[in-house]
Amino acid sequence: MNEKQWIEYLKKHVSCFEDVIGIGDDSAVLPDGTLISTDTFVEEIHFSRKWASWRLIGRKACEATISDIAAMGGKPLWLLANLSSSESGGVADELLHGILECGIPLIGGDTTSSQKGAVTLTLTVLGKTERPVLRSGAKTGDRIFVSGKLGGTQAGLLSLQKGLNLFECEKRFLEPRARLDISESWGALATSMIDVSDGLSTELNHLSEASKKRFRIDISKLPCFSEIEKTGREAAELILESGEEFELLATSNFNLPGGFEIGVVEDGHGVYDGLNEILPRGYDHWS
Amino acid sequence: MNEKQWIEYLKKHVSCFEDVIGIGDDSAVLPDGTLISTDTFVEEIHFSRKWASWRLIGRKACEATISDIAAMGGKPLWLLANLSSSESGGVADELLHGILECGIPLIGGDTTSSQKGAVTLTLTVLGKTERPVLRSGAKTGDRIFVSGKLGGTQAGLLSLQKGLNLFECEKRFLEPRARLDISESWGALATSMIDVSDGLSTELNHLSEASKKRFRIDISKLPCFSEIEKTGREAAELILESGEEFELLATSNFNLPGGFEIGVVEDGHGVYDGLNEILPRGYDHWS
Repeated sequence: MNEKQWIEYLKKHVSCFEDVIGIGDDSAVLPDGTLISTDTFVEEIHFSRKWASWRLIGRKACEATISDIAAMGGKPLWLLANLSSSESGGVADELLHGILECGIPLIGGDTTSSQKGAVTLTLTVLGKTERPVLRSGAKTGDRIFVSGKLGGTQAGLLSLQKGLNLFECEKRFLEPRARLDISESWGALATSMIDVSDGLSTELNHLSEASKKRFRIDISKLPCFSEIEKTGREAAELILESGEEFELLATSNFNLPGGFEIGVVEDGHGVYDGLNEILPRGYDHWS
Repeated sequence: MNEKQWIEYLKKHVSCFEDVIGIGDDSAVLPDGTLISTDTFVEEIHFSRKWASWRLIGRKACEATISDIAAMGGKPLWLLANLSSSESGGVADELLHGILECGIPLIGGDTTSSQKGAVTLTLTVLGKTERPVLRSGAKTGDRIFVSGKLGGTQAGLLSLQKGLNLFECEKRFLEPRARLDISESWGALATSMIDVSDGLSTELNHLSEASKKRFRIDISKLPCFSEIEKTGREAAELILESGEEFELLATSNFNLPGGFEIGVVEDGHGVYDGLNEILPRGYDHWS
């Protein structure tokens, strides 16, 4: 069962509530506008000590988690951290420092032993919004925006692996930031929104599927890190699959402040650049 | 760093909020009365497939988690489930069935791969109460109550290990239930409350320390499973250390309905039976 199948499975089995927006969006939305989202990070699956300190790993995990609140147009308010580790002391201490750096108050959590060498961190974030932006609201004629340059995470990992010294991209890989600076202003204007955590091609398909619309984008308009040319990879390909960017992808019939316009919403289905269909091809670049 | 040290560490570092009851109680309490609690369960640390199906493991984990809401006098409303597993399909499916049996709507979660053989389940529960009952409210002269028979979990595990056929206790070990049936009525009357997840001796000490009072109990009054005599263990000892009972332990100057009165709150500190001090000695009986 992959993640998509699991979500489909959950949707089928979990239908006993009608006043909550639950499984399938970036965060669940409770009747009072509370947002809640949770992410699990497993050593050597989601992160590696090869590239980053525990502090950076904690910070990145935290940014990834609060990015799900940003993706709904919300403001993160409280955090819980669960840690399983076979080591005591240092790991927890350093991870915690990274988490606290995000500035969201930590109000609870759990700590347990784990089997040797398998550190698992689960973060849960509570937030609030008066207008949750779902994936399903894109309208025909809306324009499609992305909030910043893409491709940096994947290029940064390649740079570290090959010793390319692409420092801007390495920083993006190691120290990405959730777009809390714009999430509320975009949330007030957007018809649909998501964060680029699984790669732009995947996220475009998520919005297109949930909104039942065709997304027509112009690949030549995608904003990207200039350093990615030096990776030897084809730029457009790398931009489309680079995950953990945590930029926002949104549709709106307004100009989204600071956004890069990359396409338009049409009747139909699928994601296209001209005649070429863009299929989801993101994968987990943190592994 | 053990759990107590970690909690102390967190308390020291996490002081940037004043309107939340955070780390140190069974659940965090948000300004609007929302309760939130989270627990992590690791294979071969908190549970073993030797005694239980994935469905029973999921159900027990769920009862343990919602018991933290019961311990605050609250009502559990929503649940999130995070699963890390190296196997696909069956484990998630069966665990989910156990979780759904608890009857609390599942509104989110995460699923990830894990290293081989290390299934990790994190459950997060949101609840509500108008009157959160903390650990720190016991008053001199209050009486001490426990909501049901104790010792069954530990006796049940011994029974399974030794083939003693103590079926009532085995059922308690495999299928404990959070006391949602009484949590709200006790919550309206109690001055302090906790659930017996780490053993009665440990929980009594938690209340005594948080309330800065002496807890004087009468060990001969502790309600227990009759089968525990057949384990060969000294009954009082086993009752005091048996965890994962999920009965409620509370103080009040009212009669708590259905409760067993086991002692009284006095000025001073520590937990005593006559002149004998009762030190915390619970441990994780699920391992």
